[in-house]
Amino acid sequence: MAKSILITGGARSGKSLLAERMTLGLGAQAIYIATAEAFDTEMEDRIARHRARRGPEWVTVNAPLDLVGALADSDGQGLPRLVDCLTLWLSNLMLGEQDCESAAAELADLVPRLASPVVFVTNEVGSGIVPENALARAFRDAAGLTNQRLAQTCDEVWFCVSGLPLKVKPQ
Amino acid sequence: MAKSILITGGARSGKSLLAERMTLGLGAQAIYIATAEAFDTEMEDRIARHRARRGPEWVTVNAPLDLVGALADSDGQGLPRLVDCLTLWLSNLMLGEQDCESAAAELADLVPRLASPVVFVTNEVGSGIVPENALARAFRDAAGLTNQRLAQTCDEVWFCVSGLPLKVKPQ
Amino acid sequence: MAKSILITGGARSGKSLLAERMTLGLGAQAIYIATAEAFDTEMEDRIARHRARRGPEWVTVNAPLDLVGALADSDGQGLPRLVDCLTLWLSNLMLGEQDCESAAAELADLVPRLASPVVFVTNEVGSGIVPENALARAFRDAAGLTNQRLAQTCDEVWFCVSGLPLKVKPQ
Repeated sequence: MAKSILITGGARSGKSLLAERMTLGLGAQAIYIATAEAFDTEMEDRIARHRARRGPEWVTVNAPLDLVGALADSDGQGLPRLVDCLTLWLSNLMLGEQDCESAAAELADLVPRLASPVVFVTNEVGSGIVPENALARAFRDAAGLTNQRLAQTCDEVWFCVSGLPLKVKPQ
Repeated sequence: MAKSILITGGARSGKSLLAERMTLGLGAQAIYIATAEAFDTEMEDRIARHRARRGPEWVTVNAPLDLVGALADSDGQGLPRLVDCLTLWLSNLMLGEQDCESAAAELADLVPRLASPVVFVTNEVGSGIVPENALARAFRDAAGLTNQRLAQTCDEVWFCVSGLPLKVKPQ
Repeated sequence: MAKSILITGGARSGKSLLAERMTLGLGAQAIYIATAEAFDTEMEDRIARHRARRGPEWVTVNAPLDLVGALADSDGQGLPRLVDCLTLWLSNLMLGEQDCESAAAELADLVPRLASPVVFVTNEVGSGIVPENALARAFRDAAGLTNQRLAQTCDEVWFCVSGLPLKVKPQ
């Protein structure tokens, strides 16, 4: 079973940079599986900044919806994969009115069967006041449940605070 | 002094399931003290899902407001109690225009005098952007202060991340 | 190099009280560098409550904007400083349409050159749902990036949960 790592934390807690370092610690070259879609200039800027930071050792694959397919297709080449991030993937699924719960279950089932390592980035979205918006509540439910599923199956779980990793699993 | 445990974390971080396991680790049978009131179908569904998950080893007591009374009444039978959750209790008190601060102080004073164990579930609600709504700000103040009081008096405090417990107390 | 400590956590997680204790652990007398400005009675109340709690061992300096200047001016007297808090300082800078990123970089550059100890209080604001308000998103970006910069340069970083400190750095 290939190594699997989940990195969670709040927005701007340094998760992506930590995940990039951990992924390159698992292989000199790596595959970046991007779930972000640029709907506006704010998101375009963010994607461009992230991409500019990554060096030539990265190959980028876009997987806004078919994350399971992208992981399966890129598997077995000995290259570690970085999935950034699960919450944008869930958001894309919800916007596309797809079944988040089945998709998360399918993803969690795939992890222990992967031949090459994978590092997942996700977000903590449930530590604020209960959102008034029903869709936002459904989203944070989906994100929290997906994080639980992935945390259960991954070998390592890290909680990022101000750019620094706290080890949650194994303990 | 009977064992007292506080479990905190964001929404959908697996707190309830962890709390159920910890409570059943303190006794083969247990009392579930529910603070939730079903005002709408979303909440009804959530209550029904939680109840369905719990097995026949649980007796349920409803205490939307008089949590101190419910803990006192169920004490001394040798059965561990699970209180799920403090933030809904505070929300009920606020809606009923009762004094949250006195209630929280009374609860914290009771804990070290209990003869049977208790596990409290609470929520992190203060790690998002400052809410625009004054009532929401008052609520997160009340929740934070109550969590501090209970954390101070309880023997153990756990912070739940993606379904996994991080030990906060004792250290 | 004088000791530098960063304390982060959600609203009402007990950060200020913890910071006051840690600061007084570094010196019998201390300087309180307040970044809060009272724009309304809610904030006035909060400032008054915090001030009432602090004893005569504290001298208060107000620095809503020029935090770097206040730290430089109070340096070298052998007195530890408590900065409470970085997020209010960033909020003041944003309201004044000043460049938060440069200010945060300047602050982070100053820390390793200080001759007297400093304890910073900051807030976790990025663990809720993505705010709909663009200014709120910009603010949580600025806060997160500032927290990362300070965490990198400070000797110790603590994450406050329900009033209890979790050590993040060093590990």
